[in-house]
Amino acid sequence: MSQPKQVNVGVLGATGTVGQRFILLLAAHPFFHTTGLGASPRSAGQPYHRAVRWKQTSPIPSSVRDIVVKECKPEEFADCVVIFSGLDADVAGDIELAFRAAEFAVFSNAKNHRRDPVVPLIVPLVNSSHLSIIPHQRSLHSLQKGFIVTNANCSTTGLVVPLAALEHAFGPLESILVTTLQAISGAGYPGVPSLDIFDNVVPYIGGEEEKMEYETLKILGGLTEDGKSFDLHSNTPLRVSASCNRVPVIEGHTEIVSVRFAQRPPPSPEEVRQALASFTPPGIPEESAKVVCPSAPERAIVVHDVLEVDRPQPRLDRDFQGGAGVNVGRVRECPVLDIKFVLLVNNVALGAATSSIINAEIALEKGVIQV
Amino acid sequence: MSQPKQVNVGVLGATGTVGQRFILLLAAHPFFHTTGLGASPRSAGQPYHRAVRWKQTSPIPSSVRDIVVKECKPEEFADCVVIFSGLDADVAGDIELAFRAAEFAVFSNAKNHRRDPVVPLIVPLVNSSHLSIIPHQRSLHSLQKGFIVTNANCSTTGLVVPLAALEHAFGPLESILVTTLQAISGAGYPGVPSLDIFDNVVPYIGGEEEKMEYETLKILGGLTEDGKSFDLHSNTPLRVSASCNRVPVIEGHTEIVSVRFAQRPPPSPEEVRQALASFTPPGIPEESAKVVCPSAPERAIVVHDVLEVDRPQPRLDRDFQGGAGVNVGRVRECPVLDIKFVLLVNNVALGAATSSIINAEIALEKGVIQV
Amino acid sequence: MSQPKQVNVGVLGATGTVGQRFILLLAAHPFFHTTGLGASPRSAGQPYHRAVRWKQTSPIPSSVRDIVVKECKPEEFADCVVIFSGLDADVAGDIELAFRAAEFAVFSNAKNHRRDPVVPLIVPLVNSSHLSIIPHQRSLHSLQKGFIVTNANCSTTGLVVPLAALEHAFGPLESILVTTLQAISGAGYPGVPSLDIFDNVVPYIGGEEEKMEYETLKILGGLTEDGKSFDLHSNTPLRVSASCNRVPVIEGHTEIVSVRFAQRPPPSPEEVRQALASFTPPGIPEESAKVVCPSAPERAIVVHDVLEVDRPQPRLDRDFQGGAGVNVGRVRECPVLDIKFVLLVNNVALGAATSSIINAEIALEKGVIQV
Amino acid sequence: MSQPKQVNVGVLGATGTVGQRFILLLAAHPFFHTTGLGASPRSAGQPYHRAVRWKQTSPIPSSVRDIVVKECKPEEFADCVVIFSGLDADVAGDIELAFRAAEFAVFSNAKNHRRDPVVPLIVPLVNSSHLSIIPHQRSLHSLQKGFIVTNANCSTTGLVVPLAALEHAFGPLESILVTTLQAISGAGYPGVPSLDIFDNVVPYIGGEEEKMEYETLKILGGLTEDGKSFDLHSNTPLRVSASCNRVPVIEGHTEIVSVRFAQRPPPSPEEVRQALASFTPPGIPEESAKVVCPSAPERAIVVHDVLEVDRPQPRLDRDFQGGAGVNVGRVRECPVLDIKFVLLVNNVALGAATSSIINAEIALEKGVIQV
Repeated sequence: MSQPKQVNVGVLGATGTVGQRFILLLAAHPFFHTTGLGASPRSAGQPYHRAVRWKQTSPIPSSVRDIVVKECKPEEFADCVVIFSGLDADVAGDIELAFRAAEFAVFSNAKNHRRDPVVPLIVPLVNSSHLSIIPHQRSLHSLQKGFIVTNANCSTTGLVVPLAALEHAFGPLESILVTTLQAISGAGYPGVPSLDIFDNVVPYIGGEEEKMEYETLKILGGLTEDGKSFDLHSNTPLRVSASCNRVPVIEGHTEIVSVRFAQRPPPSPEEVRQALASFTPPGIPEESAKVVCPSAPERAIVVHDVLEVDRPQPRLDRDFQGGAGVNVGRVRECPVLDIKFVLLVNNVALGAATSSIINAEIALEKGVIQV
Repeated sequence: MSQPKQVNVGVLGATGTVGQRFILLLAAHPFFHTTGLGASPRSAGQPYHRAVRWKQTSPIPSSVRDIVVKECKPEEFADCVVIFSGLDADVAGDIELAFRAAEFAVFSNAKNHRRDPVVPLIVPLVNSSHLSIIPHQRSLHSLQKGFIVTNANCSTTGLVVPLAALEHAFGPLESILVTTLQAISGAGYPGVPSLDIFDNVVPYIGGEEEKMEYETLKILGGLTEDGKSFDLHSNTPLRVSASCNRVPVIEGHTEIVSVRFAQRPPPSPEEVRQALASFTPPGIPEESAKVVCPSAPERAIVVHDVLEVDRPQPRLDRDFQGGAGVNVGRVRECPVLDIKFVLLVNNVALGAATSSIINAEIALEKGVIQV
Repeated sequence: MSQPKQVNVGVLGATGTVGQRFILLLAAHPFFHTTGLGASPRSAGQPYHRAVRWKQTSPIPSSVRDIVVKECKPEEFADCVVIFSGLDADVAGDIELAFRAAEFAVFSNAKNHRRDPVVPLIVPLVNSSHLSIIPHQRSLHSLQKGFIVTNANCSTTGLVVPLAALEHAFGPLESILVTTLQAISGAGYPGVPSLDIFDNVVPYIGGEEEKMEYETLKILGGLTEDGKSFDLHSNTPLRVSASCNRVPVIEGHTEIVSVRFAQRPPPSPEEVRQALASFTPPGIPEESAKVVCPSAPERAIVVHDVLEVDRPQPRLDRDFQGGAGVNVGRVRECPVLDIKFVLLVNNVALGAATSSIINAEIALEKGVIQV
Repeated sequence: MSQPKQVNVGVLGATGTVGQRFILLLAAHPFFHTTGLGASPRSAGQPYHRAVRWKQTSPIPSSVRDIVVKECKPEEFADCVVIFSGLDADVAGDIELAFRAAEFAVFSNAKNHRRDPVVPLIVPLVNSSHLSIIPHQRSLHSLQKGFIVTNANCSTTGLVVPLAALEHAFGPLESILVTTLQAISGAGYPGVPSLDIFDNVVPYIGGEEEKMEYETLKILGGLTEDGKSFDLHSNTPLRVSASCNRVPVIEGHTEIVSVRFAQRPPPSPEEVRQALASFTPPGIPEESAKVVCPSAPERAIVVHDVLEVDRPQPRLDRDFQGGAGVNVGRVRECPVLDIKFVLLVNNVALGAATSSIINAEIALEKGVIQV
């Protein structure tokens, strides 16, 4: 429970939007210390502030301004133990494999390895227990220290936190129907052309609904008995229906959720509110959370008061707790399923870089990362 | 089937946003002729172009520019037969009753009388058959010609058109789960403060969910056997769950809909697409539609091609057919209910003034309006 | 003055945003008939509706839906007399030269040839007299019929219309200081990333200020005495200072203009208002304007009443006259120069395709196009 | 230079948007301690968190959550020395006079007393020397301790900071031409209706241009020789022409400025950049600034590098230094006047509450506030 030792980390995709977030968050981190920045060959060789088109609302941290960007090759990151990958999906697959093969602890925000049967897909407030598959992952690939952990799609991340809280309190869910209203920042940069989304809604995001429907099962399910794969919630079938929409909001995904419980009669809205508000993420030691998991939110789920009938709202609530928690409001009965509610997740914080960093904090605390 | 004779009409609430729409639409109408404009005592006595803060994207029609605005009193509208009411709900109730009592045919966009057991709530592409209750309404109030017909809430209007098409083709629905993404113009003027909705979603619209859940039943249900009240879909229970959200879009409500049919097995997505595309509104005579119902759309429902995966979109599709039809896209299986799809309704056209006008056209054709 | 004969035209860059506008406008044109569509080799060979990502708010005109797209080579457009070019600047230069060399009458919206000393830069409401250089252009290139006419940058186009009216009424201007608030559609598609412009202003548009400062001189100036080049307003020096900004508006450029006249004392605001409102474009025959220039606006400049203190506004005024005129408001004294005012120009209508088409209409009427 | 003692302060208009900002800023203040909250009689008597419709992006500070709101009467604020007024102009005038008469030091954000000949209009980075009129103000009103200091209109505030730097370095200015692109938050809440400003520019803000033209003279000018009034820059006439526009931006006013110097030849852009970047606000003791003026920015003016051609931008730059400084970019020659540049001021920080607080800090340090 003493302050962890300093750990050198590298950031891949450092000039992209997720990479910029990693850099901002890590600049203020008590024990992760950014020493390596990787980007495309075009950027390599330049000091970071020249290579990047910085799009954040606070300036480039002075500690990384002049770090020379390198290509994303393991040999360039010899002084790092942990690698955070904010790479685009078109290159992330092979590069992350190369870093794992070179015995790095890789925490990836990319989608490429999320469906790999031995790569855990971890939302840190939900299923850090899935880190237990790492020894098997290493053994399969004949590694001593290297591994890959991915975090989930930003929309999935927001969804599974309250769902996990509900399953924890009331047993298995049977059906989930979710409609998302997703922010433009979820599409990266340049991302969504302004002509497509000004004064508009785009009721389709390629691949997003499939990701939400699959990832929810992988995250909420357990491991198989032998501990060597994920059971995809197979003990009790869980049906997930997602409809994903892009809306003209900069940051913060809103999700409209209806759920049906296996338990009959289902819990009341008031019971659901209490279960959500009192949920504490398994795997984060409560008494030492601030020391070992400094990036985790104080409250995993903030439940808005029943009087705050029009909350959560992205512009007003997305920065609460640095965007590391999930906000839930409007918990009420659903005339078709059992209960419906609204949730808000900060897609660029908990929905992306923040999750990777908390995952690494937990992995360090559990000894999964070998320093 | 000959061209109907000219009918003088009055517009109440003429300076408001709905009233402005009535005026624009009626200025180009082949047989409704606007002769009276009613507004608050503050506006009365001024020529229309002085009284109004005109907010439309085309100029004030020259035919109404200099009409002197009157107070909303029946005696001021002696030369009118039909009254279109775009009044705000805080005054609409009593004023509309007064006009009915004075033997006017009142077509109202306000919510006040929608739950009245003898006032039909008519979406013209769906349930103009409910006009059959008018004789009973008159008899109850000892009237010869006067009556009130209301149109539905803008979100309900968009929803019930495809639902009616589905019930027509496949029999009763069992459950409907709908999430709306509603435009700011739905709240009138000044309506939503910009600080509340820029870069934001507001996941609550006061009273809207209750309206959608009630009105859907009144519209899709039939009349009771004695023809003197509405059965609220009582033969086969229909559960409706609505979640209503305000989004930063100027015009056009998007609705994400999942339905479950009573019929097992349910129809396939392809069967649903065909049923929607081929739906023709009952009560509008097909062969003479353009003459007697010139404001009705050529196609009640436009179904987007399966290749147009990201449609309908409000900015691109809301003005098709002058906003008088409903656009549907993304018809596909729902893992939780049976079928899900996306619809778009122009809230200020079909969702408001256009519906009232088509209702009046049908009522004229059926002889319900006594000229 | 009889209806002109039918003229076959081709559109280059037909799948781009300017090309889509050309197609919409030409589909309703009384004598230009679109028979050829040119685009990149990637699109060539496909029917238009497959090749294009249509982004307009009305559907693809049925008359062009199935036209097979060709490469932008003169031999593919043998049945056309007039070519409208909506090509991007990176390819427009050479392709337009090739079409001119092949004896086509080329009307270009691209910037490439605007500074060519023998290519007229024509804003149709202002300087169609510059068509008189065409014989010299042909002679230089040994052509019988071929020529290139360009239209101006969208911001320049809006600016020079009222400036020409002022010079016409009050003699030469001495200084112009203009600040633009430009719409995103001015940047084409995909154009401005939404992350760059949501809730933001970008106070820089590459090359735009230089274009406005140069083009204003070329358009407002006359020809040199020998009629073989443009005098760039050299008789009386005119200083132009432009500051260009991108704002979160979809369509319609707003420009804040201050001018100083050579004439002392300068005209009063009321004299300026009258001069603007009564301006009639030279070169468009008044009595037959609707027949020979059907795309020209009825009023070149609409001056907002002094009571309309907050107009023009892009959303409310950009579609007036189909966006073919310029709206001016808030004419008042400037404490630093003489007079200041606000103007609005529809950047995708008069600021782009509409100007090219009116230019071609005038050129046809004057016999410059040889059918 | 030791840490100032604690000073109790009251906030009037505490439930409004400016009041909310005062509360947020003061909650973190090292020596101003909020003990009184004043609002309308309707709110009085309720704990603050019930009375307010909180619209900030961080939660209500716990230190004020349960403070009971009082009416804006001096006797209710007996424990306060300093009063910050965020009152609306329709009530601010009389209430502020009453507090002054009751011997409070009143720092007002309202416009009511800005033109009072003995009330200083202070932009803290510019003219805190104007506090020297306070003894005369007191004497006129027979007061011992009471006085009123106002801060400037938000747009004026941003403008005068670089202008003061230029006059400090290069002597008097002769002409200023400024076009503003102002954020919606400048209009308060509910303020601008979303239907008026979505996808739009409104080229008019009532009274704003007059305020900028007058206030600039009062702030940049000195006191008359007898020290009893302001000279409105009378020694060297200064012409100011302002054109004010509302744009769809939430926070941060952008201003496009051209200036002409009295000095011929004028300074070069590079000299201007250096003068701006090195400007230090007179009246804030440099060595102890952080202690006595903790709310002042470290750099009064941040000048963007010539390579940052598209900065400042409201979304990216408005929160730098907590919005307490002014950002300037694009310093270059103006073909009509001498130099032009772009500035950004955070209208709700330096443009409002932050200025009032720094004014109070300086007044405390100078002994003008008598604790």
